[in-house]
Amino acid sequence: MTAADAGTDGGLDFVVHDAREVVVGTGDEGLRRTVDGAVAVVDGRVAAVGASDEVCRAYPPENAHESIDATGKTVVPGFVDAHTHACFAGDRSDEFVAKLRGASYQELLAQGGGILRTVRAVREASTDRLTADLLAHLDVALAHGTTTVEVKSGYGLDVETELRMLRAIAEADDHHPVDVVPTFMGAHAVPRGTTGDDYVDAVVADQLPAVADQGIARFCDVFCDEGAFTPDQSRRVLEAGLDHGLTPKVHAEELAHTGGARLAAEVGAASADHLLHATDDDVAALVAADVVPVLLPGTAFSLGGDYADARAMLDAGAPVALATDFNPNCFSRAMPFAMTLACVGMRLTPGEALVAATAHAARALDLDDGRGTLREGAPADLAVVDAPSHVYLAYDLDVNRVETVVTGGEVVRRD
Amino acid sequence: MTAADAGTDGGLDFVVHDAREVVVGTGDEGLRRTVDGAVAVVDGRVAAVGASDEVCRAYPPENAHESIDATGKTVVPGFVDAHTHACFAGDRSDEFVAKLRGASYQELLAQGGGILRTVRAVREASTDRLTADLLAHLDVALAHGTTTVEVKSGYGLDVETELRMLRAIAEADDHHPVDVVPTFMGAHAVPRGTTGDDYVDAVVADQLPAVADQGIARFCDVFCDEGAFTPDQSRRVLEAGLDHGLTPKVHAEELAHTGGARLAAEVGAASADHLLHATDDDVAALVAADVVPVLLPGTAFSLGGDYADARAMLDAGAPVALATDFNPNCFSRAMPFAMTLACVGMRLTPGEALVAATAHAARALDLDDGRGTLREGAPADLAVVDAPSHVYLAYDLDVNRVETVVTGGEVVRRD
Repeated sequence: MTAADAGTDGGLDFVVHDAREVVVGTGDEGLRRTVDGAVAVVDGRVAAVGASDEVCRAYPPENAHESIDATGKTVVPGFVDAHTHACFAGDRSDEFVAKLRGASYQELLAQGGGILRTVRAVREASTDRLTADLLAHLDVALAHGTTTVEVKSGYGLDVETELRMLRAIAEADDHHPVDVVPTFMGAHAVPRGTTGDDYVDAVVADQLPAVADQGIARFCDVFCDEGAFTPDQSRRVLEAGLDHGLTPKVHAEELAHTGGARLAAEVGAASADHLLHATDDDVAALVAADVVPVLLPGTAFSLGGDYADARAMLDAGAPVALATDFNPNCFSRAMPFAMTLACVGMRLTPGEALVAATAHAARALDLDDGRGTLREGAPADLAVVDAPSHVYLAYDLDVNRVETVVTGGEVVRRD
Repeated sequence: MTAADAGTDGGLDFVVHDAREVVVGTGDEGLRRTVDGAVAVVDGRVAAVGASDEVCRAYPPENAHESIDATGKTVVPGFVDAHTHACFAGDRSDEFVAKLRGASYQELLAQGGGILRTVRAVREASTDRLTADLLAHLDVALAHGTTTVEVKSGYGLDVETELRMLRAIAEADDHHPVDVVPTFMGAHAVPRGTTGDDYVDAVVADQLPAVADQGIARFCDVFCDEGAFTPDQSRRVLEAGLDHGLTPKVHAEELAHTGGARLAAEVGAASADHLLHATDDDVAALVAADVVPVLLPGTAFSLGGDYADARAMLDAGAPVALATDFNPNCFSRAMPFAMTLACVGMRLTPGEALVAATAHAARALDLDDGRGTLREGAPADLAVVDAPSHVYLAYDLDVNRVETVVTGGEVVRRD
């Protein structure tokens, strides 16, 4: 469809205009922005982005199905949250207190707490309950500007419950404007009463074929770390996943350096996530293998520890991505808070953090449809921010500045 | 009025009942709480607090002017934010970026940025503009459960503008349900083109008498630190303030150890604030002199630095208080976020952080009317929190769990 057609036959879905700043995507010098900008949407995709007067001449807002005057405001691509465990049940707020009193993550896990406690709660929860709770969390994410979110299974640790989790995730995707990307993570923890090797046998022999059979996961993730799975065990899971058409992802080098990053590079993972203990060699291997480093500052923050060395990764040419890691251990669904932490904790600029939370995060999910940008042809997923620049997303520590969220050219959330 | 009267003649303002948890105040072992609790309010003050069935028998909710069924929820005293610079004008979000690129707080100040930049913006702003912006910030604070907030002048640095700021603060207090406590802080920075000594002469000779004359400040604060005022200069300001009936407060040991805490103890200040570089001796002196340490984790967080040693202060018997320090350098008005930072950054428990944000904060403002608690007789300032315990105030990183706020027994804010 040409611009003139769009302007006359009603095919114009949406125009946001007169924005003080429109963030288009990455550019030669980091963030590509347009001042006094507009975005026009036809058939759910960005038809034009640029100077407001030019865009509005070609795509008059009055001809659009819906339009927003964004005077004084900022328009950014919808956030892509590339790593969450948002499907869960139960309450672990008491462990937040226990950790403040000195208990370690590994100690809680060894006592049957942590992930294993959520496993018990998820096994007891109905699939409808899991779906309903996930939908409520997606509402919060959307309200903070997230339009695509990856959600992992991994609190079932048996065939039946892993499948129920993935069904709940698919169900939530069907009933929510946020696009949900499903990841199978049977190898999230070693259940009590078995060994890592035996459990990996079960994941490979039973869980993966059942998941693949139903076609309800895109990625296969594994927690390769101290107290979880060894690199050899993790490799078995990821290679079996590949045989079933699932792209690998790796929880790597979070609690200790055990070789997860190197493994991610070797199996051609879409991403290696956490990376608090990654070495320069690890980062070079990830860059060479085109593996996206997904950093999770909320978890580093919640655990009171250090942050991953984002600056070294950027300097090495890595497309650093950010995610919330939302889970009972890190109770955050808001990508702007991940941006704040990336700035304050990792010393990224807000522009670097925004690219990490959008375009780079889309790469971590193998999404090559332009998502995470507002370039022409990209899906029209965007947020209107009540602030004069994208900086406020990181700078304002307590007010959600996201005012309106659009997916596929349709307004799906208004403050 | 007796309970029976309240139940029959309509004098009963408000009852909140069936709360899963009511936080009453401090107790022998930290937080004093009631499970399945209620609070009844007569004439703006807490008439009864305790087990829901008992309170409701004496003060039937159906006889109250207003009542809330808080089943599954938590009731806490309204937060007391004991340290803010919430009256300001202008935008310094670009300095947030400059600091991430490596500029220090002191460098920005030396270049005429930081406080001095806000001074220029405030001098250019009308008093009505200052009032309107402050009211908007108070709305955000109230929405997050704050019912009392201290606000400082200090962006005027001349008689006229300091008085205008204090008038704006008084005006906002008159038109907002949050109780605003005004502090004069002429000695916030040394204006360009003068010396610290000469400027202190002006504060003492011109500003303080004018402020005292109008009776529009309760405290006198000074920034005793490297790049600001020396302990000798600070003492001159605070002693002159005392002569005019203003109780001292001190910004102490934030950027370097210069003697502000010791000074606070010597002049009998209500509080010494920041204290990142305070020594054990300093803390002992504060405890001996009954000076409340007010810790500002938002500023420590925003500057990417270390936190004050809250645990050492609690161990020394100090009534540690928390505040937001809301200012263009720390864009946070939400006490729950200060609690989160106090937990994650300073390793306080949520209970310790809550006491610090309420009862101890009230002490830092010399408020001895029971504020910051829900004990019988205290002002009925409280927040209903949509969570099964107070822990969620710190644990949930991005959703404002405060649902309803009450001041003086009247619902003044509903989510």
